[in-house]
Amino acid sequence: MRILYHLPLSPYARKVRLVLSEKRIPFELRVERVWERREEFLGLNPACTVPVLEEENGLVLADSYAICEYLDEAYPDLPLLGRTLGERAEVRRLVAWFDGKFAREVTENLLYEKQMKRLLGRGNPDAAAIRAGYANLKPHLDYLGWLAETRLWLAGNALSLADLAAAAHLSALDYIGDLDWSLNESAKDWYARVKSRPAFRSLLADRVSGVNPPVHYADLDF
Amino acid sequence: MRILYHLPLSPYARKVRLVLSEKRIPFELRVERVWERREEFLGLNPACTVPVLEEENGLVLADSYAICEYLDEAYPDLPLLGRTLGERAEVRRLVAWFDGKFAREVTENLLYEKQMKRLLGRGNPDAAAIRAGYANLKPHLDYLGWLAETRLWLAGNALSLADLAAAAHLSALDYIGDLDWSLNESAKDWYARVKSRPAFRSLLADRVSGVNPPVHYADLDF
Repeated sequence: MRILYHLPLSPYARKVRLVLSEKRIPFELRVERVWERREEFLGLNPACTVPVLEEENGLVLADSYAICEYLDEAYPDLPLLGRTLGERAEVRRLVAWFDGKFAREVTENLLYEKQMKRLLGRGNPDAAAIRAGYANLKPHLDYLGWLAETRLWLAGNALSLADLAAAAHLSALDYIGDLDWSLNESAKDWYARVKSRPAFRSLLADRVSGVNPPVHYADLDF
Repeated sequence: MRILYHLPLSPYARKVRLVLSEKRIPFELRVERVWERREEFLGLNPACTVPVLEEENGLVLADSYAICEYLDEAYPDLPLLGRTLGERAEVRRLVAWFDGKFAREVTENLLYEKQMKRLLGRGNPDAAAIRAGYANLKPHLDYLGWLAETRLWLAGNALSLADLAAAAHLSALDYIGDLDWSLNESAKDWYARVKSRPAFRSLLADRVSGVNPPVHYADLDF
């Protein structure tokens, strides 16, 4: 069986889980405590990060960018990167926006400070970073809401990796109770649509020991 | 004429310049002072980062990931992402390694702290970050050197985007005099090979006002 090494709150692992599920590719999840730096895992990915995908034929893929591009090439039935060159550029621009800019300005300031720092043994959360994360959330949700208002999906007329990358970050932040959905109604409507897709079910069923999600987390009519 | 908006020391813009030159695609360089947040440029890329590529047919591409993937799809004559699924996964894993891990652990601690912070008006360089950048350089050069010893090019038998991404970061650090090439002989040999390619010439001819590169910067027998 295909194995995906992951951590339940990793937005990058969540993105790959969503891609696999949307494409109906069966896989088995295996939690990898990356902070333990397990020797066998370092052999699979010297960067010692999740996600890592191990295919049934033995091919090992590390890094969510490499994995998602691979999945769209190897399993093209439901294309998630767009069809024309222009569409593909827009999908990838937005994936980079969420995995790069949003990650740096919001996710790392909140999820990393409040959850990962403790696990990695890197000290206490930095209050200034957390404040910055909350402050950056509003303009990002406004941009997302504007995209959702002017297009059917974030990158255009079809669901794409851009939607899944964005939803992966937002769902992880929602789990730790850091998403104020009242900040932007259109962003909330878009998220409700993504969240109600069957591919999202496994993410909503996730529970991390010691961290309980808010009541609305798994509620499709939040 | 095709236009590439760039900054001379941006490793991401350098990577795209190398890809364009390797593929012999003609382009015109235009410096974009991103810290001025020029309205027309924000219209091209709301993230307000370089590189941005404007094609002759009007297609605008933002973010180096989107641009490089596009260039390999639109101009496939010299493929830089590998041929088989496994090769492509390895190229992309290493691109993510240099543009993600190396960027965070080395480039940002040195280039961002010493050059960009001043330009962006974000205060003085952080001495602890600079120390961390120097400390992280050695293990990274060792990994690069190990790849270069065990393979013809970093990702396998052919020159790929992995080499260009790595060389883009290293050349920017070399410009500001922050690369101690004595740290790893194999990494130095690999860099000498990449640096002597015709595609590298324009990077070596770059000069940034107020910052002079060390004597060896443009020397092919450094």
